[in-house]
Amino acid sequence: MLPGIGRKGILAMNEFELISRLTQSLPGNKSLVVGAGDDCAVLDLGLPDRLLLFKTDAVVEGIHFSADTQPEKIGHKALARCLSDIAAMGGAPTTALITLALPRKFDPAFVEKIYSGLNALARRYDVAIAGGETTVNPERMLISVALLGTVPRGKCILRSGALAGDALFVTGELGGSLAGRHLEFEPRLSEAQWLAEHFSLHAMIDLSDGLAGDLRHIMRASRVGAELLATAIPISRTAKLASKAETSTKTPLLAALTDGEDFELLFTVASRDAVPLLDAWKQKFPKEKLKCIGKIVPGETLTIRDQQGVRNLAAHGYAHFT
Amino acid sequence: MLPGIGRKGILAMNEFELISRLTQSLPGNKSLVVGAGDDCAVLDLGLPDRLLLFKTDAVVEGIHFSADTQPEKIGHKALARCLSDIAAMGGAPTTALITLALPRKFDPAFVEKIYSGLNALARRYDVAIAGGETTVNPERMLISVALLGTVPRGKCILRSGALAGDALFVTGELGGSLAGRHLEFEPRLSEAQWLAEHFSLHAMIDLSDGLAGDLRHIMRASRVGAELLATAIPISRTAKLASKAETSTKTPLLAALTDGEDFELLFTVASRDAVPLLDAWKQKFPKEKLKCIGKIVPGETLTIRDQQGVRNLAAHGYAHFT
Repeated sequence: MLPGIGRKGILAMNEFELISRLTQSLPGNKSLVVGAGDDCAVLDLGLPDRLLLFKTDAVVEGIHFSADTQPEKIGHKALARCLSDIAAMGGAPTTALITLALPRKFDPAFVEKIYSGLNALARRYDVAIAGGETTVNPERMLISVALLGTVPRGKCILRSGALAGDALFVTGELGGSLAGRHLEFEPRLSEAQWLAEHFSLHAMIDLSDGLAGDLRHIMRASRVGAELLATAIPISRTAKLASKAETSTKTPLLAALTDGEDFELLFTVASRDAVPLLDAWKQKFPKEKLKCIGKIVPGETLTIRDQQGVRNLAAHGYAHFT
Repeated sequence: MLPGIGRKGILAMNEFELISRLTQSLPGNKSLVVGAGDDCAVLDLGLPDRLLLFKTDAVVEGIHFSADTQPEKIGHKALARCLSDIAAMGGAPTTALITLALPRKFDPAFVEKIYSGLNALARRYDVAIAGGETTVNPERMLISVALLGTVPRGKCILRSGALAGDALFVTGELGGSLAGRHLEFEPRLSEAQWLAEHFSLHAMIDLSDGLAGDLRHIMRASRVGAELLATAIPISRTAKLASKAETSTKTPLLAALTDGEDFELLFTVASRDAVPLLDAWKQKFPKEKLKCIGKIVPGETLTIRDQQGVRNLAAHGYAHFT
């Protein structure tokens, strides 16, 4: 596990304030449907049946990967993170540009392997790599991916649509991703597109900061609260083992709530859709987990219910800003 | 002037080879019209009347600006470089995402001023800033801009369309940009859109590496040669003064050929269009310079004609890779 990995910034309080101030005064225009603050920006450029999704995401050596990470996995992760954001809108990716900032001395074979990981993932989802740019960053490697996608009109899932009474779902298992999964995860594109097509999802986000942190993004955007059911939260075997072996100071539940970099889907649907959705999911994705982990409630508080009752949840997950 | 500024990399020969190898094996898909190797990627997403343009470009502290550069100018330059690439395709910009990689300690007021320069330029061209990402780059600031634009179908100007016999034009004055203009230049969007609308441009590029280097990009893409007329090349006053004051070791002509970061337009049209184009330009843009500086010829050689006759031009301009 890398120290600091998953943290997108150090995030002194004034940095949060800064981002908030910056995003308030950004210029818009008539084609901008959703700007800063969701998984992707949403644009209406006049395509009859679709909206455009636009996203950038960067990985930095020593922060999101280490100097000894396998290069194919660096490339995979750099693109997969962006693909996961397209998934979280219910969209399909189309084209990426890669900005590669390299120290003046580098190993060309290493860079080729980064691209081979990146290209393999792109081919799997029919994403064109349309070029990009190479520049100098003397002290460390930085890879920024800009990704374009589309989503059918009326099927774009934002963070802001959750309603009190909604059932809250999460795919996969949470926690312990930084032990390895964060470099290998498969973005949930197929699942998200299927969900968006067949059910009326109210809100969705991909888990990058940890369940507790990312659920708060949905709560803030939707102006609602949420109640988690502790026993329902799917905890990864890695997180359980780390806790048992005392390689992590977190309980397995806390790891699942706050480790970050899970890149699973967190979404809400009307409670009446919960059972039909679970049934249909089991038919469609028999090997993939999907759990109902709680509900959306009025207010603005995040609580967790366990054997002792209901208490406020203070654990935030990693700080995050877009 | 910054040491190394304008150089996008140090570009050992193996780096050129690497980029060439990387771009050969990039995945495409059915929406990709033009991939790596032009000013922008070109996509056909099914808009009835337009194609999409997609570009990323990064500026790095100590490479493209210095720690004491005015922050508003850093923001201006970061976006203006991308806008210039959209201009070089004959397109109009629509939406940008900003990736800001910052040291862990930074001055929020400085970052706000970067955005104020960037936002002011965006508003002037009705470009939405749709968010982006903030991440950590411990040693220096890096700003990557991803920009989306559109171009009318049939009006997109590539590097690859130059034909032997074409007249070669350049806007503005060249050389000496690194003394200050590179931080303040106005991207030639209005001029490029007007040119693309009213004339059949065969090829166009924006000058980032210097006239000699960028003309070679057109030559390579179009499989042609070119002959420059030394006395016709517009040399900036800054370049002339630098040579006179011996602050530059280059002759003014060499500065105009190789300084880089001019962000002017270099384009070709059929020779029969040259005079009508110049006449119409003078009416439309009476204050902006446009010069015919030579012609496209068969072959693959770049020559320059002066009082002594015609000779091969060895000066390359800054190395460049996209």
